[in-house]
Amino acid sequence: MKYRLILFALHLSLLASAQKKPVDTVNNPLVARRITIDTREFETFVKDAQPQQLRELAEFLKIPSVSSVPAHKNDMVTAAEWLAKKLKTIGMTQTEVVATAGHPIVFSKWNKATGKPTVLIYGHYDVQPVKENEWKTPPFVATTSNERIYARGAADDKGGLMIPIWAVEGILKRESSLPVNLVFLFDGEEEKGSPNFKKFLQTHQSLLKVDLAYNADGMQFNDSTGSIWMSLRGSIAVEFEVRTANTDAHSGIYGGKTPNAAKAAAQIIASFYTPDDKIAIEHFYDRVLPLSKSEQTMITKVPNDEKKDKNDLGTTAETGDAAFSPLERLWYRPTLEVTGVWGGYTAEEGFANIIPGSVHVRLNCRTVADQNGVEITRLIKQHVSKHSPKGVTVTFKDFESYSTPIKFPAAGAPFQLAYDVLATVYKKPPLLTAIGGSIGALTDIKEVLGVYTYSFGFQQGDENFHAPNEFVRIADIEKGQKAYYVLLKHIGNEWGK
Amino acid sequence: MKYRLILFALHLSLLASAQKKPVDTVNNPLVARRITIDTREFETFVKDAQPQQLRELAEFLKIPSVSSVPAHKNDMVTAAEWLAKKLKTIGMTQTEVVATAGHPIVFSKWNKATGKPTVLIYGHYDVQPVKENEWKTPPFVATTSNERIYARGAADDKGGLMIPIWAVEGILKRESSLPVNLVFLFDGEEEKGSPNFKKFLQTHQSLLKVDLAYNADGMQFNDSTGSIWMSLRGSIAVEFEVRTANTDAHSGIYGGKTPNAAKAAAQIIASFYTPDDKIAIEHFYDRVLPLSKSEQTMITKVPNDEKKDKNDLGTTAETGDAAFSPLERLWYRPTLEVTGVWGGYTAEEGFANIIPGSVHVRLNCRTVADQNGVEITRLIKQHVSKHSPKGVTVTFKDFESYSTPIKFPAAGAPFQLAYDVLATVYKKPPLLTAIGGSIGALTDIKEVLGVYTYSFGFQQGDENFHAPNEFVRIADIEKGQKAYYVLLKHIGNEWGK
Repeated sequence: MKYRLILFALHLSLLASAQKKPVDTVNNPLVARRITIDTREFETFVKDAQPQQLRELAEFLKIPSVSSVPAHKNDMVTAAEWLAKKLKTIGMTQTEVVATAGHPIVFSKWNKATGKPTVLIYGHYDVQPVKENEWKTPPFVATTSNERIYARGAADDKGGLMIPIWAVEGILKRESSLPVNLVFLFDGEEEKGSPNFKKFLQTHQSLLKVDLAYNADGMQFNDSTGSIWMSLRGSIAVEFEVRTANTDAHSGIYGGKTPNAAKAAAQIIASFYTPDDKIAIEHFYDRVLPLSKSEQTMITKVPNDEKKDKNDLGTTAETGDAAFSPLERLWYRPTLEVTGVWGGYTAEEGFANIIPGSVHVRLNCRTVADQNGVEITRLIKQHVSKHSPKGVTVTFKDFESYSTPIKFPAAGAPFQLAYDVLATVYKKPPLLTAIGGSIGALTDIKEVLGVYTYSFGFQQGDENFHAPNEFVRIADIEKGQKAYYVLLKHIGNEWGK
Repeated sequence: MKYRLILFALHLSLLASAQKKPVDTVNNPLVARRITIDTREFETFVKDAQPQQLRELAEFLKIPSVSSVPAHKNDMVTAAEWLAKKLKTIGMTQTEVVATAGHPIVFSKWNKATGKPTVLIYGHYDVQPVKENEWKTPPFVATTSNERIYARGAADDKGGLMIPIWAVEGILKRESSLPVNLVFLFDGEEEKGSPNFKKFLQTHQSLLKVDLAYNADGMQFNDSTGSIWMSLRGSIAVEFEVRTANTDAHSGIYGGKTPNAAKAAAQIIASFYTPDDKIAIEHFYDRVLPLSKSEQTMITKVPNDEKKDKNDLGTTAETGDAAFSPLERLWYRPTLEVTGVWGGYTAEEGFANIIPGSVHVRLNCRTVADQNGVEITRLIKQHVSKHSPKGVTVTFKDFESYSTPIKFPAAGAPFQLAYDVLATVYKKPPLLTAIGGSIGALTDIKEVLGVYTYSFGFQQGDENFHAPNEFVRIADIEKGQKAYYVLLKHIGNEWGK
């Protein structure tokens, strides 16, 4: 019970302060407890199961479960049902595909570990859209090359969520029971900011009495170093159409008189930024919390791999507000990115001498505590209206897609248990890091179920999440199962002590 | 011979001054000579031929002869051959599809009018690309609605060039001979700036001894008013790719650090313009000639239809340098238009939280005397290089597509004859106007063959040239044939008197 009390006290203090000042995320010195759980037989079991696991992953990756594209609505159901079927097969007590106002959530529990805590494991089966012509292999066909599986969702997060499922399958096959009670929650709208997740939690609270939670949509620092995230940024998506005429116009006959939607869109986009690469939207930074001392300290401990960006993106160029270091900007400062723009004559070949009547712009902001997604969206709309050249009509498309930023304490039993396990698996303590990405559901779990969902994932940062040619390393699928095996055993052994 | 001498004198003086000071395009007062040519029987003939003519036009419009798109190379040949076959059928003396370094030129002559002048008629069978999803009817299917034919090229210029062909067919059918000698030249690269036209003229000068020339790619002022263009602008096309990374990047993991190609492209585009809507490219205006007194006078005589833009484009908004009136800007001032922009996630539905690694931008400038297309292209490239944010690589695609601006004298026999005819057909004198569009071949004809090609066309400005849902009015096809009938007869009667 000791941990539970500490955790409860922590919650109280955090609830009181969360919206006021930064959570102190780094509690030094952290000491990993020694774990003596023999994983050798389990590792052999996983090795033997690998061909079957990769066949299953290929089946799962084949389903184009792109949550933000309405045409894939049925694929979302297919993916959810595929998952539910798998969970039933491995012997979970109860498995449901739960409808929401959007895409379904897959719920599955195992509750026969009397007297043991209940562990929530979060993941998501939806994926980002693809630009198919930029993929070297078909995005919805699992292609194995160089000990990697290439496909949309291979890492983010179909590969990620299968790891704990297979770990649990392995334990149940070998031992017929689990060391803890378990709840899997697999989200179908993570890539949309999980707009229906909170209501699901509120409606099904009685099913969701959990003691601690982990996020299978997390990352290693690298092959040899584990990582636990101390914060995530939030996310909003905005789309607008800049319209200057109800048709494209002949650039000779009208050029010099009729407004050009592409020019107007460019002027609007350019107006978002100051010359020194800050965001120029009024009040955008008003609620941004300064970095805490411990966050600054944490960043100093993260090794800098100068070759990483060059390897991942082919560039070492950096942008953004020079008043902050790159990791400060990536983790604790908000952004406004243009994610897509199109209008006029956009076919690959040829040219058309027109004045575009309409151009579309898509934006994504990564928000940080204590920014509010609804407010930021409103500020952007106000800015666009104010900075639209004359003759321009701007129409917004509402996504109602907001992930809230979240910070985690580097203390408490759920944190410490994960810390111990990662230190054991990697034979050295994990790095505390943060991530500029967003998982809206984690905030909902904290608010409704009262627990922090610590990252416990084995993807790596170079695996092209959201980009063409996403992949996952087969070795990490193995390593992840071992880590989840140790985690569930360790919680079963140590919780409440 | 009187006109020929006047014309020759004019040429000499214009050749001497053309690149130095504006041509005086308005010679007031102009007086239309009375023409007594009975058109009643010919009009009946045209009426009877209309069903067959519209079937032919539909055949022609079905061929997607988009010159700027390499995939349509074979369609260009098909269209040229379709035209040549038609010209052979109507009884032209010699018809050839002449290969060029680009798309072919269709040459056709009739030379049995001994002692009569030779008239060149110019038109083009290539068309602009289409954005098919913005068309209400399929762009390469002629659809009749409300006494209009809808299809790409219906007005610009397949419908346009068929008018003189049908007029000639009618005369030859009824009279077995023409009142003048004739050369048709149908360009396959007008929409690309006719890059191979000049060389064709130079190579075939012996075939091309012509006395006067008319352009079937012209326009009426409106249903009840004819028009002759006193100038056209030139045109250049530029395309470039803005690249910041070799892949799109996750907007959470990299956002705040990695440059965004869409932001960079927007900043580059915005840098093209000053706050007061001039073009900010250094030396862009250096060679621009001021409007002449007669050009200013001409503009004051053009009635302003306030509803026109509202009807055509759904907007009354105006852009551009306020130091000039709208018609001054449209006709005598240069432009820089973004004709297309695309990058990042551009699918119609959904959103992807990425930082685009690459964005494409297409530009079109309308140039005016004495700007030089090659020089303007170079200035744009220099500007883009200078204004590219750090971390950006810009790659240009060369179109080698330049139309040179041209001005016409409002005097001389070829002008006066057209003026007389339009005054007769419309029962009032035509308006002298200019056009902001470009027909590069007209400059070539002047330079190589020594004649001005006066516009003699019956399209109208609201017919969506270059835009979706292009159309031509059936009544104008009839009217145009009558006008060409009178023109050829009138030249036959009056030339040399």
